[in-house]
Amino acid sequence: KAKWSDVDIRAVDTVRVLAADAVQKTGNGHPGTAMSLAPVAYLLFQQVMRHDPSDPTWLGRDRFVLSCGHSSLTQYIQLYLSGYGLELSDLRSLRTWGSLTPGHPEVHHTDGVEITTGPLGSGLASAVGMAMAQRRQRGLLDPETKAGQSPFDHHVWVLASDGDLMEGVASEACSLAGHQELGNLTVVYDANQISIEDDTDISFSEDVAKRYEAYGWDVVDVDWRRSSDPAGDADYTEDVDALLSALEKSRRVGKRPTLIRLHTVIAWPAPSARGTGKSHGSALGEDEVAATKKVLGFDPKKTFEVDRAVITHTREVKKRGKAAHREWDKGYKAWRRANPERAALLDRLAAAELPKDFAKALPVFEADEKGIATRAASGKVLGALADVLPELWGGSADLAESNNTTMAGQASFIPTGKQTAEWKGGPYGRTLHFGIRENAMGMILNGIALEGLTRPYGGTFLVFSDYMRPAVRLAAIQELPVTFVWTHDSIGLGEDGPTHQPVEHLASLRAIPGLAVVRPADANETAEAWAEVLRRGRPAGLALSRQALPTIDRKTHAKASGVRKGAYVLVDGGTNGDEAPEVVLVATGSEVGLALAARERLEKAGTRTRVVSMPCREWFEEQPRSYQNKVLPPEVRARVSVEAGVAMGWHDLVGDAGRCVSLEHFGASADGARLFREFGFTPEAVAKAAKDSL
Amino acid sequence: KAKWSDVDIRAVDTVRVLAADAVQKTGNGHPGTAMSLAPVAYLLFQQVMRHDPSDPTWLGRDRFVLSCGHSSLTQYIQLYLSGYGLELSDLRSLRTWGSLTPGHPEVHHTDGVEITTGPLGSGLASAVGMAMAQRRQRGLLDPETKAGQSPFDHHVWVLASDGDLMEGVASEACSLAGHQELGNLTVVYDANQISIEDDTDISFSEDVAKRYEAYGWDVVDVDWRRSSDPAGDADYTEDVDALLSALEKSRRVGKRPTLIRLHTVIAWPAPSARGTGKSHGSALGEDEVAATKKVLGFDPKKTFEVDRAVITHTREVKKRGKAAHREWDKGYKAWRRANPERAALLDRLAAAELPKDFAKALPVFEADEKGIATRAASGKVLGALADVLPELWGGSADLAESNNTTMAGQASFIPTGKQTAEWKGGPYGRTLHFGIRENAMGMILNGIALEGLTRPYGGTFLVFSDYMRPAVRLAAIQELPVTFVWTHDSIGLGEDGPTHQPVEHLASLRAIPGLAVVRPADANETAEAWAEVLRRGRPAGLALSRQALPTIDRKTHAKASGVRKGAYVLVDGGTNGDEAPEVVLVATGSEVGLALAARERLEKAGTRTRVVSMPCREWFEEQPRSYQNKVLPPEVRARVSVEAGVAMGWHDLVGDAGRCVSLEHFGASADGARLFREFGFTPEAVAKAAKDSL
Repeated sequence: KAKWSDVDIRAVDTVRVLAADAVQKTGNGHPGTAMSLAPVAYLLFQQVMRHDPSDPTWLGRDRFVLSCGHSSLTQYIQLYLSGYGLELSDLRSLRTWGSLTPGHPEVHHTDGVEITTGPLGSGLASAVGMAMAQRRQRGLLDPETKAGQSPFDHHVWVLASDGDLMEGVASEACSLAGHQELGNLTVVYDANQISIEDDTDISFSEDVAKRYEAYGWDVVDVDWRRSSDPAGDADYTEDVDALLSALEKSRRVGKRPTLIRLHTVIAWPAPSARGTGKSHGSALGEDEVAATKKVLGFDPKKTFEVDRAVITHTREVKKRGKAAHREWDKGYKAWRRANPERAALLDRLAAAELPKDFAKALPVFEADEKGIATRAASGKVLGALADVLPELWGGSADLAESNNTTMAGQASFIPTGKQTAEWKGGPYGRTLHFGIRENAMGMILNGIALEGLTRPYGGTFLVFSDYMRPAVRLAAIQELPVTFVWTHDSIGLGEDGPTHQPVEHLASLRAIPGLAVVRPADANETAEAWAEVLRRGRPAGLALSRQALPTIDRKTHAKASGVRKGAYVLVDGGTNGDEAPEVVLVATGSEVGLALAARERLEKAGTRTRVVSMPCREWFEEQPRSYQNKVLPPEVRARVSVEAGVAMGWHDLVGDAGRCVSLEHFGASADGARLFREFGFTPEAVAKAAKDSL
Repeated sequence: KAKWSDVDIRAVDTVRVLAADAVQKTGNGHPGTAMSLAPVAYLLFQQVMRHDPSDPTWLGRDRFVLSCGHSSLTQYIQLYLSGYGLELSDLRSLRTWGSLTPGHPEVHHTDGVEITTGPLGSGLASAVGMAMAQRRQRGLLDPETKAGQSPFDHHVWVLASDGDLMEGVASEACSLAGHQELGNLTVVYDANQISIEDDTDISFSEDVAKRYEAYGWDVVDVDWRRSSDPAGDADYTEDVDALLSALEKSRRVGKRPTLIRLHTVIAWPAPSARGTGKSHGSALGEDEVAATKKVLGFDPKKTFEVDRAVITHTREVKKRGKAAHREWDKGYKAWRRANPERAALLDRLAAAELPKDFAKALPVFEADEKGIATRAASGKVLGALADVLPELWGGSADLAESNNTTMAGQASFIPTGKQTAEWKGGPYGRTLHFGIRENAMGMILNGIALEGLTRPYGGTFLVFSDYMRPAVRLAAIQELPVTFVWTHDSIGLGEDGPTHQPVEHLASLRAIPGLAVVRPADANETAEAWAEVLRRGRPAGLALSRQALPTIDRKTHAKASGVRKGAYVLVDGGTNGDEAPEVVLVATGSEVGLALAARERLEKAGTRTRVVSMPCREWFEEQPRSYQNKVLPPEVRARVSVEAGVAMGWHDLVGDAGRCVSLEHFGASADGARLFREFGFTPEAVAKAAKDSL
């Protein structure tokens, strides 16, 4: 039983009034859900979740994910009531420049916000990643302790809306959550039957409960509305006891995630706005706000009214949080004493530091004209790092062998009963199997990274980065240490044809602020690329070849460590490679070999030619101008970019005099070598472009 | 009962052998599914589907969608056996340069292929669009005739794989298909339990049947495998009678789409390869191909062996198809006689022609300093076109009011029983409600366009074009007349903050070959943009503002018809706007007004300034060089681009001397006007960039 006192009830009503006031003051926002979910969020923050408002990054805390991020007030007002640092003045400045209360919750911006949400489905899908990460972290640090008794046990709580449940990315992630038996995940589905187009019956009549049962979830119905009309019937009753009981039950150790389908009336109890689409995304209007206040016994003339008794009462949760934290500390300290090595590992992971000499583990590849695919090199790098970096883990969206994402010999992350003939593992395993669910993979990687201790990666074909683009953007916005392994990175993949051949993807991914796109030219650049990605701890995507690429002879060419600066002079002008160039060829990935071949022709014809390998434009742009000018001397205007994709983005680098050897149309189905020839990626064509540029 | 003769059985086995041979010859491809689905595809092409191989574009044909596009041989071999024009030589040249048999089926490339598939989930989702379009087309042309008796009734048949069913886009589309009660859609789900990572149990253990029941589908289980082992048990029996009965039943008039879950053994009956992940995507190897031939009673030394009796027998389907076509013609001709106006409409639609004077219906907007948002102008354009272009229809992914995608007064496309208080309509309605399912919306739009008679559009926020990017790419690859209505096209949307503010999207969409990105500057440009998009009949995305934009005075500025060329001189240098410019400001959308304001400052300071409005770079790039040089005189090197997004792509246009006023980072939550100021989108900043450029 929730056993709410009058002051609890007043507090919950205060939440509704604050939500209405805040949106009314700003003039826009989403009041409805914040009003109707007030008792739900209050239960979670005051009675259900283990958290300590004095220490928002406490290792032992439960995680809270507001998947319906538009209802940011739901979270902000609880953070205010719980004492996370937000005050009434912050609620007053909702959605305004520089405030701590932006339109949608932003991690690293507001204390107590665990994740940036807003794009529907994304929060729920990332919460699945958090729940998976919790299990993996426990497996790394405290695998022996009984379930529910480790300091590394915690629960993930999600508030999700109708819109979250319609999005395919949530379907993907929730199917996987059921499969992974994530008992540490509870989703409260706010089934208010209202979205922007009003009654969701216009587009969404499926049986959600049955669908989640099909995924293997526990589904509990809590019906406050008792009506198929989104406005509910006259005796709408917020039965918080029933909800609390469902929440508490879902926390018990088990093998299924829980969906609590809670039928609510949006904007309850606003007399006219409740149950309407308008209340979802618009200010209620002054009259309606006043009318609501009257219903709730607040003074319609006052705004942002909070009784002292309410705030005093709700901030008691700080004391309870501290007590829980102290209690947890006992177990945590005992664990540290008993596990000094693991404690050292934890300290390193919590500080997001790499082992000092981790890069020594990287393989070095001998010069080899035949070479290997950079995807294969990436696989070897991962294998070599497995023992050195236990925090590194990942997998593929059903393309493990193609993406080379499996660290050799590592167990799969899979419930014991779900191993297959091909894949052995256990609940604490390391190799992830996402199924053919790229967007969920991306969101899950984000969730894993947000949990804070491990470093995830995930693979698919580069062309299918399109499927996961919403997740990639959120990784970039949140600046998360997530690595996307995108293989089959050009027409070089061959026969699978235009639907599988990326053409525009390198450009379109480079357009995303804060994402490093790294396209190494050979095996050694691949090793350096991985190392630098790990050092930087920021979102990065590796674009790797399907086809073998020659391993460049580093005795006659510059060292691959140049990768760290994003671009470097691989070989300079003159037949001995030591003279000032007349023309600069700038290439990435598989086209670096092509540039080298073109250089030979040009040099034979007496043109001093420099080849610059530019695996990462973003890293290069960060370098001091002096280094940039060293690599691309401003006085050398004859420049050619060579990349098997659209030229977009390269013109600024090669300048008015430059040329781009590029691909401005979709590919075709044929073997890769043939496609390169047919589409003008030949040494002759590059040499000709260089001459045109001179 | 299928009543297969020995020659039918031999034909089906021939399919398996051809599939194995073709992949073996090319050295790569996907033999397994083509082998095990041989009897399924044979049933469909020989006995179930209404089609006429002599006329692949017959209006009355059923549609076949191979959602598991990697198994293209499944389709190619049936096209060969049915006599669509493919011959053995085409199968021999599988996946090679210039062949009619590319790695994945490509529409407009191979007769009998209705849709380009390959990216998983996409075919199934687009098939939902086809089924929806069939209903709308029937409603336009023959609404009175009883169900199943109209020449415009046809059925959509889909083959889908485990991978298709894992993808979120299929979940979205199938939820909507159930909601829309699409009785004209049958999906055969090849539950072979194998994907690239072998046994799908590693990532996919949900109850698919239950999930589809939850969506409102009829689900039929046909179990040939009778084992949870993907390799099946010893007495694997291809019970084609059971399958045929399920297929026939699904075709009967009803209110539910059908999912036939067919449990198969992949690569059956290859003795070693069957039931394995390897057989999914690799050649079987010569020994295994030979062993398979032995099992099936073929000569292991021969390749591409087809008995004359087999091909003679299977091509009988041409006769049956012609007969069915003749029979249909009777009803069709009767319909034409009885419906001359509708017949004229049909002829126009089938020819993809617009009414000659359709553009006369477009609204003209008076000059107005306050103006209106281009999204609002777009809504007015749609309303004005409603009566003139009955083929135009569309809706939104739950943002109807925000996207202004509803044609005023038009009924919703919705089963009668699913109308809501807000939305009235019926099964033949016009306003689409996609729910919060952007990717499915895109795929459905593609499917609608592929059906061939109508012109669909769909709206969401520009930032969520990310969610639908796989569909946008497929629209571009297939060159479909689909229009994406993307509103809230910059930081100008304001308070919703960085997760909702597009920054990189214009660039990343322009990177897609064959997609026109159109960003009109005011209401009149919006009308011209719509008209030109419709005229061209190619994939286009409109980027429209949330905020009001001044309606430019066309008496003092150039006519908006310049939009048709992608870019035009809006006003020229000199205070009277009639002199040669010293500097050119190139702007799009909401930033055109900013450029005009900057021009005023520059002119006051004595700098002759041209403003070019460039709503569509792709259209401009198609213009003759002479026109391009007229708009952007090569001799004027001082150029500034102004667009509230990343500069990527603009450098080549402004050149080495030019400047880009752009946004290279994510936005923030605040009102739009404030954000423009804070992020440097001011007349002062543009004027300064112009001076720097001079």
